[in-house]
Amino acid sequence: MKEKPLILITNDDSIKAPGIRALISFLRPLGTIVVVAPDRPQSGTAHAVTIAHPLRLELISKEVDYSEYSCNGTPADCVKLAFKVVMKRRPDFLFSGINHGTNASINVIYSGTMAAVFEGALAGVPSVGFSLGDYRQSADFAPSGKFVREIAGKVIANGLPDGVCLNVNIPDLPENKIRGVMVCRQSEGTWQEDFDEREDPHGEKYYWMKGVFVKIGDGVDTDQWALENGYVAVVPVHFDFTANHALEALKTWF
Amino acid sequence: MKEKPLILITNDDSIKAPGIRALISFLRPLGTIVVVAPDRPQSGTAHAVTIAHPLRLELISKEVDYSEYSCNGTPADCVKLAFKVVMKRRPDFLFSGINHGTNASINVIYSGTMAAVFEGALAGVPSVGFSLGDYRQSADFAPSGKFVREIAGKVIANGLPDGVCLNVNIPDLPENKIRGVMVCRQSEGTWQEDFDEREDPHGEKYYWMKGVFVKIGDGVDTDQWALENGYVAVVPVHFDFTANHALEALKTWF
Repeated sequence: MKEKPLILITNDDSIKAPGIRALISFLRPLGTIVVVAPDRPQSGTAHAVTIAHPLRLELISKEVDYSEYSCNGTPADCVKLAFKVVMKRRPDFLFSGINHGTNASINVIYSGTMAAVFEGALAGVPSVGFSLGDYRQSADFAPSGKFVREIAGKVIANGLPDGVCLNVNIPDLPENKIRGVMVCRQSEGTWQEDFDEREDPHGEKYYWMKGVFVKIGDGVDTDQWALENGYVAVVPVHFDFTANHALEALKTWF
Repeated sequence: MKEKPLILITNDDSIKAPGIRALISFLRPLGTIVVVAPDRPQSGTAHAVTIAHPLRLELISKEVDYSEYSCNGTPADCVKLAFKVVMKRRPDFLFSGINHGTNASINVIYSGTMAAVFEGALAGVPSVGFSLGDYRQSADFAPSGKFVREIAGKVIANGLPDGVCLNVNIPDLPENKIRGVMVCRQSEGTWQEDFDEREDPHGEKYYWMKGVFVKIGDGVDTDQWALENGYVAVVPVHFDFTANHALEALKTWF
C-alpha cells in the first residue's frame, strides 16, 4: 500500500473514554484516521442497531489526516454511518476500543466493542477489537501501546482472512510483566447473574443486575488462560454461528 | 420426564406481539408455561443487557400452570430475570419468538429473539428461537403451528447437545406449501445499509437507517436456500465464535 491507509476507529465506552483516546494516540502515526464513536457509554449494547429513531452525527474536530465525529447511536450504528455517510470510501482497516474491561471468553457476545468489529468484517474490512482487563475510568492504557502497535501493524501489513476479525485482550499489568502475545481460542465461561431487589419510594420493586464471571474449563489454549498468565490474548473470531459438530445428529431428527 | 416440563417463553417483539401469542398457544399443551417478555418492541437489540438502569417486572396474568410477566428490559434481561427472580427453579426448556421477520443468515447477529436463546443455552437450558419470514404485525402464524409443535416436541423428547441451540426459520407460506424441515448451516449474507438524510425543523441533519439484505453464495445446505425453497430451516448454533480455521496461520505472526 503506497498511500497511508485509511483507518476507522470506534468503541463502545463513548468518544470521551480514556480507552479510545489511547487507541487514537497509538494509531495516529499509522494512517489517515477517522473516528466515529458513540456520544455516551454503550457498554453491553452488543450488536444492537437503531431502527426506531433517527441517528445524528456531530463533527468534533478536523485536522490534516484526522477527523472525529460523535454519534447518538450504538457502536454498530457508528460503523454503518461511518461507511455510508462520513467516509468518502470504505476504510482499509477498522480498530475498536480500547475497551475498559475484558471482552475475553463469553464477554464477546455482550460487547459493543466487538459488535463494531463484526460490522467491519461483514463489510470486508480487516477489523480488530482491543480490550484491557481493567474496567475503571482510571485504567492505565500506556502498557497497551506496544501491543496495539504491534498487532495493528501486522494487520496493516498482512490483512486478515475473509470473514475473520480479531478479539484482542490485554492483561492489566505493567508492560514489563506482559509475557508476549498468544493466539488462542475463546474460552468457555458464563455470567452468573444475581439481582439486587429494592423498593422505590412508591413501594414498587425494582432490580439491579449484577453478576460474576465464571470460567468453565481451563484450557491452556484459551484467551482466559492467556490473560491469567500474563499474555495478550488474540482470538480470531467469525460470525458464522453454525454448530457444525451438531449438524449430523440433528439431521436424523427429521 | 414424568412431570410436565417447565417452559420459559420470551421474544423481542414485546409481550403484545401476535407472534408470541401464537407461540404460547402452540406450546401451552406441552408443559407448565412461564412467559417473561419485553414490555415494548426490542427488535434489533441483539444481545444487549441493561446495566445502567434498574429493571422492573409486571405480573400480567396467572392461571394454573401458566403465568405471564412483562419486563422493561431487553430479551437477554428477560431471560436472566426469569431464571433468577421469577422462576422457582431453572426451566427445562426455553422457546423464543415467534419473531416477526426472518432471523436466517447474518440476521442471527442482530436478533433479540436469538439473544434470548443464547442466554438459555449459556445457562444449560435447551433453547430454540422461532421466526417467520413476514415482519408485519398482520403476519399469519397459523401455518407455523404444526412445525413449532413438531420441533419443540423433538427438543422436549431428546434435549439438545451441550452449548447448542436452534435457530428455526419458517417460510411465509400456507401450511400445504411448506415442504418440510431442513437441518442446515447459516448462510453467508450481509446487510447493505443506506441512510435517508433529512433535515429537522431547526436545520440540523438526521439519518434514518434502511437497508437491504444481500445473500452471498447459494449453497443448497444453507438456511437461506431452505427458506427460498419452501423448507423450515433449522440451524444448530453455538456461542463459540472462534474462527478455528484461522488459528494456525495467525500463530505464525507472533
